[in-house]
Amino acid sequence: MTDAAPPPARPEARSPRGFADRRGPSLIAERRIVQRVSEVYERWGFEPLDTGAFEYADALGKFLPDADRPNEGVFALQDDDDQWMALRYDLTAPLARFAAQNWETLPKPFRRYAFGPVWRNEKPGPGRFREFTQCDADTVGSDRPEADAEIIAMACEGLQAAGLQPGQAVVRVSNRKLFDGLFEAGGVTDPGQRLTALRAIDKFDRLGWQGVAALLGEGRLDESGDYTKGANLPLGVAATIEAFLGSAGDGDRTRAETLDAIARSGGLGAAGEAALEELAGIDRALGAMRVGQDAVRFDPTIVRGLEYYTGAVFEAELLLDTTDDKGRPVRFGSIGGGGRYDDLVARFTGESTPATGFSFGVSRLASALRAAGRTDGAARGPVVVIVFGQDDMQAYLDAVSELRNAGIAAELYLGRAGMKAQMKYADRRGAPAAIMLGGDEIAAGQVTIKDLDAGRQLAAGVTDNEAWKSERPGQMKVARNELVTTVRSIIDASSRMPA
Amino acid sequence: MTDAAPPPARPEARSPRGFADRRGPSLIAERRIVQRVSEVYERWGFEPLDTGAFEYADALGKFLPDADRPNEGVFALQDDDDQWMALRYDLTAPLARFAAQNWETLPKPFRRYAFGPVWRNEKPGPGRFREFTQCDADTVGSDRPEADAEIIAMACEGLQAAGLQPGQAVVRVSNRKLFDGLFEAGGVTDPGQRLTALRAIDKFDRLGWQGVAALLGEGRLDESGDYTKGANLPLGVAATIEAFLGSAGDGDRTRAETLDAIARSGGLGAAGEAALEELAGIDRALGAMRVGQDAVRFDPTIVRGLEYYTGAVFEAELLLDTTDDKGRPVRFGSIGGGGRYDDLVARFTGESTPATGFSFGVSRLASALRAAGRTDGAARGPVVVIVFGQDDMQAYLDAVSELRNAGIAAELYLGRAGMKAQMKYADRRGAPAAIMLGGDEIAAGQVTIKDLDAGRQLAAGVTDNEAWKSERPGQMKVARNELVTTVRSIIDASSRMPA
Repeated sequence: MTDAAPPPARPEARSPRGFADRRGPSLIAERRIVQRVSEVYERWGFEPLDTGAFEYADALGKFLPDADRPNEGVFALQDDDDQWMALRYDLTAPLARFAAQNWETLPKPFRRYAFGPVWRNEKPGPGRFREFTQCDADTVGSDRPEADAEIIAMACEGLQAAGLQPGQAVVRVSNRKLFDGLFEAGGVTDPGQRLTALRAIDKFDRLGWQGVAALLGEGRLDESGDYTKGANLPLGVAATIEAFLGSAGDGDRTRAETLDAIARSGGLGAAGEAALEELAGIDRALGAMRVGQDAVRFDPTIVRGLEYYTGAVFEAELLLDTTDDKGRPVRFGSIGGGGRYDDLVARFTGESTPATGFSFGVSRLASALRAAGRTDGAARGPVVVIVFGQDDMQAYLDAVSELRNAGIAAELYLGRAGMKAQMKYADRRGAPAAIMLGGDEIAAGQVTIKDLDAGRQLAAGVTDNEAWKSERPGQMKVARNELVTTVRSIIDASSRMPA
Repeated sequence: MTDAAPPPARPEARSPRGFADRRGPSLIAERRIVQRVSEVYERWGFEPLDTGAFEYADALGKFLPDADRPNEGVFALQDDDDQWMALRYDLTAPLARFAAQNWETLPKPFRRYAFGPVWRNEKPGPGRFREFTQCDADTVGSDRPEADAEIIAMACEGLQAAGLQPGQAVVRVSNRKLFDGLFEAGGVTDPGQRLTALRAIDKFDRLGWQGVAALLGEGRLDESGDYTKGANLPLGVAATIEAFLGSAGDGDRTRAETLDAIARSGGLGAAGEAALEELAGIDRALGAMRVGQDAVRFDPTIVRGLEYYTGAVFEAELLLDTTDDKGRPVRFGSIGGGGRYDDLVARFTGESTPATGFSFGVSRLASALRAAGRTDGAARGPVVVIVFGQDDMQAYLDAVSELRNAGIAAELYLGRAGMKAQMKYADRRGAPAAIMLGGDEIAAGQVTIKDLDAGRQLAAGVTDNEAWKSERPGQMKVARNELVTTVRSIIDASSRMPA
């Protein structure tokens, strides 16, 4: 070999770690979710708001970058006037800034919904992205329990509009002040002790009471041999918490029954009593909104964003028996959540401003819908019109245009490959049919239509039913003026095809 | 006054310079544009693609940040593995990276559309933002003129779907190799001289031929007394360019006539002849797609992204007589554009890959639609149900729910203010009607409906027509079971209201 000049330096075609390219049916499914939920939110009187990707770092709050680690948690950079800006990590912080900035001129209470990408500068991993789409609805400026109830009821309707059936999801509701009251009344004042106790309670659904009791006491040795130090709560407080956590029953109590059970568990203190009163107000409003006992439950085991929420907290959970790869039942878990946060706008204005909202991640809801088997009308590729030669371009383009005008997605093959490659192309495109207009067919006023779905079914061995085969012959020659009706019958038949 | 403790430091509620909050009707109008154009693009066989906000800086190309000015042109930051990432400044560079990365598995040619924010780190100013939404459609992997024609024809259909009437916009098409050929044949080889000449030609629609001729020659003194040095082209070349620029006529020639005129103007060289051949192919395809001569014109005066495009170039222009604040006619100008770029994927792969596309800015198209008077069905606020007291909450919520179930956006007032403030709130919300359910009305099975649109019209003095007043009495009491039909008739009447 002789020495050759080095090839020109070319960048590698790759996307940054934690940033995904999304396309085709899964992207269309996510957009459909956002579209349908938006329609519900607008019908409930929530107006759309779109804030910019960047906020000043001091407006974002807890993620204020320092000079050593400017990207800790967020993507931050210094503007040319030296101010630190960061990409939003959620949609609530920008709402608080917007509300504070425009408070005088906003209709109050102010209802808005928003969706769009948020960015978190975290270690990426499988299924963990640094950019994802959130969809939020919030009411700022109302302390009424009806405002919480409305957010909860609307979240239920939004989840159903996205595709979940009634009974496939539940919104669990609690109030973070219940724990404040329990600790207060029990004399637990140390913030570290409170946090350790709350972390223990958060494991209730996984460990059951025995595990939580150990973690509320001295500590717990788990199956892998790791020891977790406990909260060392007084025994009496732990007993109160046991009764408290049991008050939801097995998910078979009405909201009012759960409230009664919480009240009977006792030891709630002043803050807890106030929390119960708020929950009773939410229950009355949910009842007036005719929200079923199955759709929204009270559940005091919910521990959620405790340094953030100031009252009611909500968590939407998928109710489906999904299994892991060893066939064991797995809980899909949370598909969204929210609550009341009365202090966020006050960061700017100094005046406490009541606010409540609900948020979900669009990709996660799309996963939940797939788990629920709700992949309705998976987007199809376009019908592909095959190109045999330049001379009959007019006939090809007329067919494309006729299909499109009938509302059927259609395209002309635009490469320069032969028949076989074009059929492979049509298959990759997920086309339901390929249209062939050879010279003879054009002259005879005919068209050949290849039913690619039938071909796929046969190739996959999905059906060898002879009757079905004769019904879906794979390829047919029809009169040219029957093009649209024939293609439409293929697409309609495919939507009824054995899965 | 006595000394008080200083108030706690609070961040100022403001968004970073060049980033706008968008809400309400204008945001809804922009989303409607994207929605309608997306439907067209999908029907034409273009699949949606969503790439991440960040690309590695070397993948973005010309904006590679250097250590001194890392944010020059783009927003760039260093990842924790020290690699430079930058927010995308358009949707084409990410497409080139994506196509290069996935070339083996993509159906080819690959058609995709995309929309989303792009970011430019430029000096913000009135109407100049550092974040805006683009909407692109591109075909990668086809060198056929049908691919260009398809993009052009689809752009026309997209603009109409967005709301422009036929005749309100035109797509002008040229080919950047025409200029290459002119310069080549005329012996103009100096790149600087070529660039100066092209800048002069780009002013043809503003300065006319006399002004351009001066700039192609020695130079030009403008009205303000500024002297611009000219390109000093040989006189013969300038004469060829004059004939060339005149070949579009006054916008009354068919595409074929313009091609003839360009050919007759002569001096095109080999590159120019090849460009003419490509344009002739595009014209044949446009004809076969039945795209009218008024919708797409050939116009050799187009100078567009010459270091970027490699063949055909497109520019969509709004055709409306808009006037400035002194009443002088103003051209709205370009509302989108594109062309053929065969070298962008090659940056990664080393192999030239033909590509062609069209892009528009969503806010700019929304402005164009406003200029064209196409603000159809401006989004209305929700119907507001007034709250008199807690006791009748059930009646209020039933009314809200009934309206929503009928597809009418409706909400309960959630604040704690009195009647007058609630009416002001309903007005700020742009509500078409306010619903009043007092205790007496509930008992009598009635409801009072205040027609707020009628009130606004009267207040604005839009009409003092007595007949109209009696038809829109402003406030009416009807049977409770006539709530939905009455509200719907108010909304319908408003859509026919004198503007």
